[in-house]
Amino acid sequence: SWGGHSRFFSISMFWLNRDIPLEGSHWLNMDNLIKALHSKGHTVTVVRTTKSWCTKEESLHYSFSTIPVTDGVEYEEFVKRIVKKVIDRVRNETLTHLQIEMFSSMSKVHKHACDLATAVLKDKDLMKTLKENQYDLVLTDPAWGAGILVAHYLQLPLVYNVRWVISREGHLTIAPSPMSYIPMTLSGLSDKMTFTERVKNMLFYLLFTVRDRLTLRPQYQAVCDEFFQPGVDFYELLQGADLWLMRVDFVFEFPRPTMPNVIYTGGFQCKPAKPLPQELEEFVHSSGEHGVIIMSLGTFVTEFPHDIADVIAAAFAQLPQKVIWRHKGDRPATLGNNTLLVDWMPQNDLLGHSKTRLFVAHGGTNGVQEAIYHGIPVVGLPLFFDQYDNLLRLKERGGAKLLSMATVDKNNNFLEALQDVLDEPSYRMNMQKLSRLHRDVPMEPLDTALFWIEFVMRHKGAAHLRTESYRMPWYSYHSVDVVLLLLGVVSVLILLLVAIVRYLCVRKCLKRKIKSE
Amino acid sequence: SWGGHSRFFSISMFWLNRDIPLEGSHWLNMDNLIKALHSKGHTVTVVRTTKSWCTKEESLHYSFSTIPVTDGVEYEEFVKRIVKKVIDRVRNETLTHLQIEMFSSMSKVHKHACDLATAVLKDKDLMKTLKENQYDLVLTDPAWGAGILVAHYLQLPLVYNVRWVISREGHLTIAPSPMSYIPMTLSGLSDKMTFTERVKNMLFYLLFTVRDRLTLRPQYQAVCDEFFQPGVDFYELLQGADLWLMRVDFVFEFPRPTMPNVIYTGGFQCKPAKPLPQELEEFVHSSGEHGVIIMSLGTFVTEFPHDIADVIAAAFAQLPQKVIWRHKGDRPATLGNNTLLVDWMPQNDLLGHSKTRLFVAHGGTNGVQEAIYHGIPVVGLPLFFDQYDNLLRLKERGGAKLLSMATVDKNNNFLEALQDVLDEPSYRMNMQKLSRLHRDVPMEPLDTALFWIEFVMRHKGAAHLRTESYRMPWYSYHSVDVVLLLLGVVSVLILLLVAIVRYLCVRKCLKRKIKSE
Repeated sequence: SWGGHSRFFSISMFWLNRDIPLEGSHWLNMDNLIKALHSKGHTVTVVRTTKSWCTKEESLHYSFSTIPVTDGVEYEEFVKRIVKKVIDRVRNETLTHLQIEMFSSMSKVHKHACDLATAVLKDKDLMKTLKENQYDLVLTDPAWGAGILVAHYLQLPLVYNVRWVISREGHLTIAPSPMSYIPMTLSGLSDKMTFTERVKNMLFYLLFTVRDRLTLRPQYQAVCDEFFQPGVDFYELLQGADLWLMRVDFVFEFPRPTMPNVIYTGGFQCKPAKPLPQELEEFVHSSGEHGVIIMSLGTFVTEFPHDIADVIAAAFAQLPQKVIWRHKGDRPATLGNNTLLVDWMPQNDLLGHSKTRLFVAHGGTNGVQEAIYHGIPVVGLPLFFDQYDNLLRLKERGGAKLLSMATVDKNNNFLEALQDVLDEPSYRMNMQKLSRLHRDVPMEPLDTALFWIEFVMRHKGAAHLRTESYRMPWYSYHSVDVVLLLLGVVSVLILLLVAIVRYLCVRKCLKRKIKSE
Repeated sequence: SWGGHSRFFSISMFWLNRDIPLEGSHWLNMDNLIKALHSKGHTVTVVRTTKSWCTKEESLHYSFSTIPVTDGVEYEEFVKRIVKKVIDRVRNETLTHLQIEMFSSMSKVHKHACDLATAVLKDKDLMKTLKENQYDLVLTDPAWGAGILVAHYLQLPLVYNVRWVISREGHLTIAPSPMSYIPMTLSGLSDKMTFTERVKNMLFYLLFTVRDRLTLRPQYQAVCDEFFQPGVDFYELLQGADLWLMRVDFVFEFPRPTMPNVIYTGGFQCKPAKPLPQELEEFVHSSGEHGVIIMSLGTFVTEFPHDIADVIAAAFAQLPQKVIWRHKGDRPATLGNNTLLVDWMPQNDLLGHSKTRLFVAHGGTNGVQEAIYHGIPVVGLPLFFDQYDNLLRLKERGGAKLLSMATVDKNNNFLEALQDVLDEPSYRMNMQKLSRLHRDVPMEPLDTALFWIEFVMRHKGAAHLRTESYRMPWYSYHSVDVVLLLLGVVSVLILLLVAIVRYLCVRKCLKRKIKSE
């Protein structure tokens, strides 16, 4: 086994951007992994920005290198902004509108990430320190490309903790992805598509590809051109990581082609439930045979517009279950006696409690994975990013019901969804089936992640798991040149044949003519 | 953990065919797996034929169901035939000739397999017994399709112990396989190809595909049509297995796209070396610092033509090493004192002995995997099937030197190859690197195979790991229909635009004309 002398380097240059949170769940995930690495004796340095929110406090588990940035916003400002903006938008606009907005905001976000990478690479003192420390590898989340550029500068093995790459689901960057059954990111489609859906999926794919090539990749390529030798291609660096720790598994994600250096660590943050604090346990216990519903819409969305909050509270009040609701705003007027408002909840411990019957969730990857782990059915209220896609995966397996935030307050929608999932046993049975499948693995996901990170350290990379594909130009990769050559040869042969036949015919005709003359 | 009450059913309808051995290493592999399953408390029934060679004796590990066949040949007859035919051919013909011959013999082999499947499905007593036994799953080697058909008839979960599927390397049947970097079966190419090699690879691919569609698949489809409902497609059954236990890993095989239900069990038969029998140990020990060379060309090829045997013996005689050679024919006149002829050798124990320096091998998958496991460099003398391709994989990693049987007796070729691999330390270092990579896994390959077989029993299949792809017609899978539609729409738009522009021009011209008039 690997001793405690390894130096380890994690690039997590997350910060709160005006438009999109660049840390949140991404950092929570990384933090879990780094703590586990620390507990195995590894020394970890985290690169963060001065505007970093989650990594603000000092930690016992790792040291920091801090980079000054000016364009971030403070946490409180960000939360206010997002609660107002997102909920308002989600209520008043269609899914397609939101998809378009998210789609177009990406370019700005990656501009920030490139500025940050430039700042880091220009910071000679920092780069000298990082070089001198002789780290064994770089761990980064490739949703933003800054870590990849720094890893290349330092010539270190690169490991991803990944769900998204730049703008798309991670697999799309390295594994063959037939658009006939692999739903494109944000398309809201499943792996079973009608012809019309396949057309939509292909259009999404083309749109993303054109956007990536025209606006996102060139930004990162410009940083490459400034700091590296000519010929260093950003997309090649991106695809060339040694290992991809993918934060899904095929209980959650639709089955699809994959690659030898993709390791599935979905749900690595899930743990058996710990006992609840006494007060909470008493509340949960008081639910009797009816059990408990828990509701949380993630780290950022803890406040609701009053009218929606009232509808939600009123629906809960009509149920025999007890409810624990993570809600920070004013106390809704319709709140029933059965509902407990909390600022924060031990979500994993509650999901693992034997009394828990239902999870009302926004569909963030972490929450969905925890629901699968504990086998709790879900009523989903997706807000942005991948949340709709995540919940769709549960729905397709019969473990969740989806509601749109735009219609949640109409026609008893919310109450009916709750009652439906509580009363129809198949939701619970399906989630418990997923739970059994998810847990039935030769090795726990967290241990798997640690094993493969240490594997890369032991062997200084994992070159033997990387294909030749990413070194090829696209026309070679897709054999366009070969097919054109073969088609050319076949055409020439056919033309020749035609010419010969014609020549013979003409000769024959001429001979006949001469004869007849 | 799974108890000892499961019933387990392995279809291994191997037999010795006039042209190609339908058991040999395929059965040896299956036998290993079944023994391990038995030792975990599973009850296994093996379906065999009356002409079965490897499964002739009764076994403590499993019971048999025996099917009468008439077209097999006896073991002794087969060995004589193959030694004469193959060695003569390999000596006198080019690789391409041999490839063509293997290619064309396939159709006959699968004809036999289909006849066998028909015989089994028609045997009402046997099918009734198999049905009544209520097995938990079927384990088969899909190099021949009979097991797949029987599994479908019994409606049981299906697990493959697989390297080849019908006529090609296993991955080609289920995983996307870009011909730009995935060398086609028997092409003799690696994953790094020049343009010309890519053209050759594509031609091989087309050749195999056309052959499979025109001659092999229809044979199996005919059996489907005879015994199953209309609409049951053999290729769909073939692709639809729950789990593929693939007898490679990416230390041996070139990295390539794969699928969620492909489990890598390469080298599962490898074990740490046991102590040698005393006489053999004394012989090995007497080699001193020079160490020992071992030579074995597999189960079938134990005899050589005299002239080649003489050249091999003479080369060995010139080396300071001791040699253990599996050779059954007459004692070569040139045999040196340092060479021990044996009928059979404990190959794994010898490869794992600290004195062993070199392995002269034919390149069967099992032997190559054992060489990797123990980190012993190889001089390869490939004869047929995948043996050239297998050895090429070692050569590409710098762990082996390849010789052609056609030139082994010329220009001191054999001696030079031996000396080169013995004297140049990189061969040994590279093989030891492969050995370290191969052994550095979270779970031993055999345990992995057992875990996933039991997983399929526990969950009655592994549907969540199977993609939607194999249910689609090829034009949908490749999005041909969608692309045609989109191209059509674009064409119509362009035509419309052209028409409008023309119309406007004409109008303008007319107006001008009218004005000027």
